[in-house]
Amino acid sequence: MSTVLNRCTIKMANSPSIKAFASIAGKKEGEGPMAACFDKIIDDFYFGQKTFEKAESEFQKQTINLALQKAKLKPENINFMFCGDLLNQCIGTTFGIRDLNIPFLGVYGACSTMAEGLCLASIFADNSLGENIIAATSSHFCTAERQFRLPLEYGGQRTPTAQWTATASGAVVVSQKGGAPFVRAVSIGTIFDLGVKDANNMGAAMAPAAANTIKQFLFDLNMKPQNFDYIITGDLGKVGSELLYELLKKDNINIVKNHRDCGLMMFSPEEQDVHAGGSGCGCSASILCGHFLKGLQAGSIKNILFCATGALMSPTSVQQGESIPGICHGVWISGTKN
Amino acid sequence: MSTVLNRCTIKMANSPSIKAFASIAGKKEGEGPMAACFDKIIDDFYFGQKTFEKAESEFQKQTINLALQKAKLKPENINFMFCGDLLNQCIGTTFGIRDLNIPFLGVYGACSTMAEGLCLASIFADNSLGENIIAATSSHFCTAERQFRLPLEYGGQRTPTAQWTATASGAVVVSQKGGAPFVRAVSIGTIFDLGVKDANNMGAAMAPAAANTIKQFLFDLNMKPQNFDYIITGDLGKVGSELLYELLKKDNINIVKNHRDCGLMMFSPEEQDVHAGGSGCGCSASILCGHFLKGLQAGSIKNILFCATGALMSPTSVQQGESIPGICHGVWISGTKN
Repeated sequence: MSTVLNRCTIKMANSPSIKAFASIAGKKEGEGPMAACFDKIIDDFYFGQKTFEKAESEFQKQTINLALQKAKLKPENINFMFCGDLLNQCIGTTFGIRDLNIPFLGVYGACSTMAEGLCLASIFADNSLGENIIAATSSHFCTAERQFRLPLEYGGQRTPTAQWTATASGAVVVSQKGGAPFVRAVSIGTIFDLGVKDANNMGAAMAPAAANTIKQFLFDLNMKPQNFDYIITGDLGKVGSELLYELLKKDNINIVKNHRDCGLMMFSPEEQDVHAGGSGCGCSASILCGHFLKGLQAGSIKNILFCATGALMSPTSVQQGESIPGICHGVWISGTKN
Repeated sequence: MSTVLNRCTIKMANSPSIKAFASIAGKKEGEGPMAACFDKIIDDFYFGQKTFEKAESEFQKQTINLALQKAKLKPENINFMFCGDLLNQCIGTTFGIRDLNIPFLGVYGACSTMAEGLCLASIFADNSLGENIIAATSSHFCTAERQFRLPLEYGGQRTPTAQWTATASGAVVVSQKGGAPFVRAVSIGTIFDLGVKDANNMGAAMAPAAANTIKQFLFDLNMKPQNFDYIITGDLGKVGSELLYELLKKDNINIVKNHRDCGLMMFSPEEQDVHAGGSGCGCSASILCGHFLKGLQAGSIKNILFCATGALMSPTSVQQGESIPGICHGVWISGTKN
């Protein structure tokens, strides 16, 4: 049985295995520095579907199917799935998974969704609440842009702090039994809202939540940044990452050397004109599944602290003058079980 | 430790306590047949806020605070909270709870949200993953109407199968220790989509999921409908309830006598002009917390199977010609621990 440390950090008893993982990315992501790590690159924005929303569902569906295939499991071997996405009423997920016939628990954590799903799947597996559990998420530039910002046809100018929603999906199968990588502990985040109101500066809005979760995790497990090869944030981008260093410096925590931000890894900001970096649920999910989990499995990476961050706003809340609440969940993933 | 029966039903080992529960409802709900059961009736649609969305957040916030007060607990005594709502990006929840400083796991299950949150909170408490865990949700007629249907000012005519989104909120504190009522088992639902495309007939879209979860639960626990004083669906309304009876009849399951639908309980359909009944996350949540849990605590009710149903669609998916996937999670709540 897992142990709760202090209040919100849960240490695994048997370190469940991430038995399989898969990632599929879009055209622009497939032209960036991470191109080689994804299982598939899909050049067609529509992924053979009639709308961008259906395309996003197709991303999530195919990524989950690929993870199942790699795990040599069928949908009926999966007890539960924790999935979600950025779209209104999470339709990227619900329409993507509806034919799988797997008991489903919908999660919403904006761009922290992969971490939230992975936390819950790991907790379930560690406490024998199912043998195999899926966590998955997706995002699509075209669905997010027209839902959160402007019609795609408008071609609006982007601010320097704006981020680019990645078209990508990531899925994992977490199992009681299996090989590396293993989930060792998770920390559930608390909402932080320091009053940032600029929807084009999500990184700044999410940095305080990331700082708090990293600090909490290190404290609860009595660990140091150097215990991890990488401390990975979801999509703070350039602006948010710098703010994160500053915030942690106040607590004498220095993560500058081993910090990586999936938003900054996904694109070449200058060449690909993405300003402050990538974002979206699928950004950190696909880089986790395409790059970091592969390294942990191969042994080239020993330990990571995966901290996906989410901005819990909507266009309506922004229009009503609200600030942007941020959240961040942390997951310690290791190449060894103990 | 909980036991997984077959695939998706989880039997509690120590039957966690629903230590406290609270409900707050709006004006129209306060004029209906359930009026006396709610802790508070709020006549002001705005709940003292500037917008309907902020009002919905206020509903959720005050209901959670009331549940905390009844449990004699402070936010810092709560390990985790599982909350969500119908609004885009779940802003009813995130802005309602952001000041509570409680580790937060966002859930999305449309109108099944209370059952999903209660399942997860119970599983966590039963496996010693935190001492006290909150589950809560809300809905608001004015936020749902303008988001899912038409501008409020339009005054559009409603079809006979249309349901009325309840303005209400419900919250529970689930604890390892405490008195009745107790959660005995939960069953996580699978998405069912039989092709219903009419967004004004959600009951019909959700009935197959409800039928499946009820059947699964009874089978996995080797129980019969008569083992429960009430088998409660969320908001199938008149049309969906009849369809549910028909579907279950095929498996020789008859729940007609002890079935109650929160959507049908909330309003007087004829006098209050709500057509097929009430709906919304807050409908089943507030009736569970206001009526059924009180009965279980007092001893006038012995056992219920609470099955909130969700329609996992969005206005976008409907406009794109998609059918409506439904889901339903079941929770057995009892006056006794064993």
